[in-house]
Amino acid sequence: MIDAKEYLKKTSAELDGPIKSYIGNEEPSNLMEASKQYPYRGGKRMRPAMAVACCGAVGGDKSKAVPLAVAVEYIHNFTLVHDDLMDGDEARRGMPTIHVTYGMPTAVLAGDALFAKAFQIICDLDVPADRMRDALRYVSQAVWDLARGQQMDVNNEGQIVSEEVYLETIKLKTSVLFAAAAAGGAVIGGADAKTVEAIHDYAIETGLGFQIFDDYLGIMGDPAKTGKSNSNDIRKGKCTVMVTHTIAALKDQPAKLDEFKSILGRMDATEEECARAKQIMIDAGSIDYAMDMARQKVEGAIERISFLPDGEDKEFMVSLARYAIDREL
Amino acid sequence: MIDAKEYLKKTSAELDGPIKSYIGNEEPSNLMEASKQYPYRGGKRMRPAMAVACCGAVGGDKSKAVPLAVAVEYIHNFTLVHDDLMDGDEARRGMPTIHVTYGMPTAVLAGDALFAKAFQIICDLDVPADRMRDALRYVSQAVWDLARGQQMDVNNEGQIVSEEVYLETIKLKTSVLFAAAAAGGAVIGGADAKTVEAIHDYAIETGLGFQIFDDYLGIMGDPAKTGKSNSNDIRKGKCTVMVTHTIAALKDQPAKLDEFKSILGRMDATEEECARAKQIMIDAGSIDYAMDMARQKVEGAIERISFLPDGEDKEFMVSLARYAIDREL
Repeated sequence: MIDAKEYLKKTSAELDGPIKSYIGNEEPSNLMEASKQYPYRGGKRMRPAMAVACCGAVGGDKSKAVPLAVAVEYIHNFTLVHDDLMDGDEARRGMPTIHVTYGMPTAVLAGDALFAKAFQIICDLDVPADRMRDALRYVSQAVWDLARGQQMDVNNEGQIVSEEVYLETIKLKTSVLFAAAAAGGAVIGGADAKTVEAIHDYAIETGLGFQIFDDYLGIMGDPAKTGKSNSNDIRKGKCTVMVTHTIAALKDQPAKLDEFKSILGRMDATEEECARAKQIMIDAGSIDYAMDMARQKVEGAIERISFLPDGEDKEFMVSLARYAIDREL
Repeated sequence: MIDAKEYLKKTSAELDGPIKSYIGNEEPSNLMEASKQYPYRGGKRMRPAMAVACCGAVGGDKSKAVPLAVAVEYIHNFTLVHDDLMDGDEARRGMPTIHVTYGMPTAVLAGDALFAKAFQIICDLDVPADRMRDALRYVSQAVWDLARGQQMDVNNEGQIVSEEVYLETIKLKTSVLFAAAAAGGAVIGGADAKTVEAIHDYAIETGLGFQIFDDYLGIMGDPAKTGKSNSNDIRKGKCTVMVTHTIAALKDQPAKLDEFKSILGRMDATEEECARAKQIMIDAGSIDYAMDMARQKVEGAIERISFLPDGEDKEFMVSLARYAIDREL
């Protein structure tokens, strides 16, 4: 079986050149610099790798999907620039966020610029115009949905929402862009509508697994490995499936529920209090519940693409789905 | 000759329905509400009117250009939402700006959502995919340029830049979207490449005239008619061709130049001081200089499309260019 992490490193190195090739030395230089920051800082590059692999898995010429891969990575980074601004986060991948270095106006514009550049790149895809249009449909829908998902995330903060709302939120804020990358890659590869749809659904499920696991890492991850505190999501009262499960599980234990709620969402909660909240979640079976759910999503994802012919690209798609919920950061 | 203002009122009324038809009742409702605000508040609708007229002027079916007209209006409004946030402006068309009513995160996302919706709409244009691609190329390039122009505007504030930099800035922040609307409309109308390019250039020149005149209104306009102070651009030290001309014209009058510079860009400048700065600009011939320049741009714009067959749409294009520099707000 392909080691997804190793394979991602390889494709990431291959995509590095293209990712750095689309923003040149136009004026004004501060906007160009700011726009390049996040895409150039690296990352797992899961979305672009998915675009290329899905093109290959349907028998397409993978080189034709590289611009789409770059476009999707730019869109991902555009959302990160705006998210960091909205959340007031000060660091990303160990370096200052855009609004910290360049100020709020340039952060807004750098995000907008990355977004625009992504659509320029898609426009110039070296495929027939009707296929470009099909890929564009997925990507533009994804960005619309991303904004909705981010807004739901903002609305949910400090709220206890239902599991259904949580799943809808993470689908919109995470899965849809995975799906646009995957379906777009398949479209470029010349897949028929049914195959594109199956690959789209594979990516939706993989994205759900990825985000559930991301939320898991947010409270159970090792800060030395993830590079971020595993108490802040509790302090922020971040709404996750683990939280919704704990609240439901404790409905007959009012004292414990009160204790849990008294810690959740309190920005000045101590490390000890956060550890206590985590223990309550573990005891309630909420961590296991979330991990089971993430595993189900990933197995569902893999099932969706079982009909694809065997080969390296399909194998990578399978291992990428597994990797989504088996990683340290 | 068609009265552009009356004709704009008519097309604006016709486009009102389509403009209000693309954002539905999806979740989350606060994002939908925030996104609708600016497009629903009205405005001159010059860009959408231009898209439709240019389609008609080349013999196309104008109804096919309506979605593009809506998309361009959404993009215009997306930039207004983000600009108002960046500038900290509190009112737009007599009502609170988005960040004032909904907060910064929702203002960022409402802009992003309008941007995404515009590309979804373009994707679904009822024209062959290759024509959709050509229109998309103009629009995505325009949004990239818009971000550059806005950043240059941010960079220029409080600076004295050359006339060349000023013209490049207003071309990027204003003309390119006029040009995308016009060229996109012509593409949808089935125009050949040379005609599309001429119409593109017509709109670039019209946009330059429009923005030079907009800057003129910013200091010489009647607040009772424009709805905004005519001193704030002086207090902000807004860089315009009038300012660059005044600075150059006063190079042998150091005392007057110092007086002018001592007022420009001072947020606490009194109404009397601002009036004095304006008088210095008038005496330096800078207002006349700017108006001459605006007129030249507009005449250049009209010249570019002189080859188009006569008809109502061409007539409107001509009067729209003239209206760009002959309006009260």
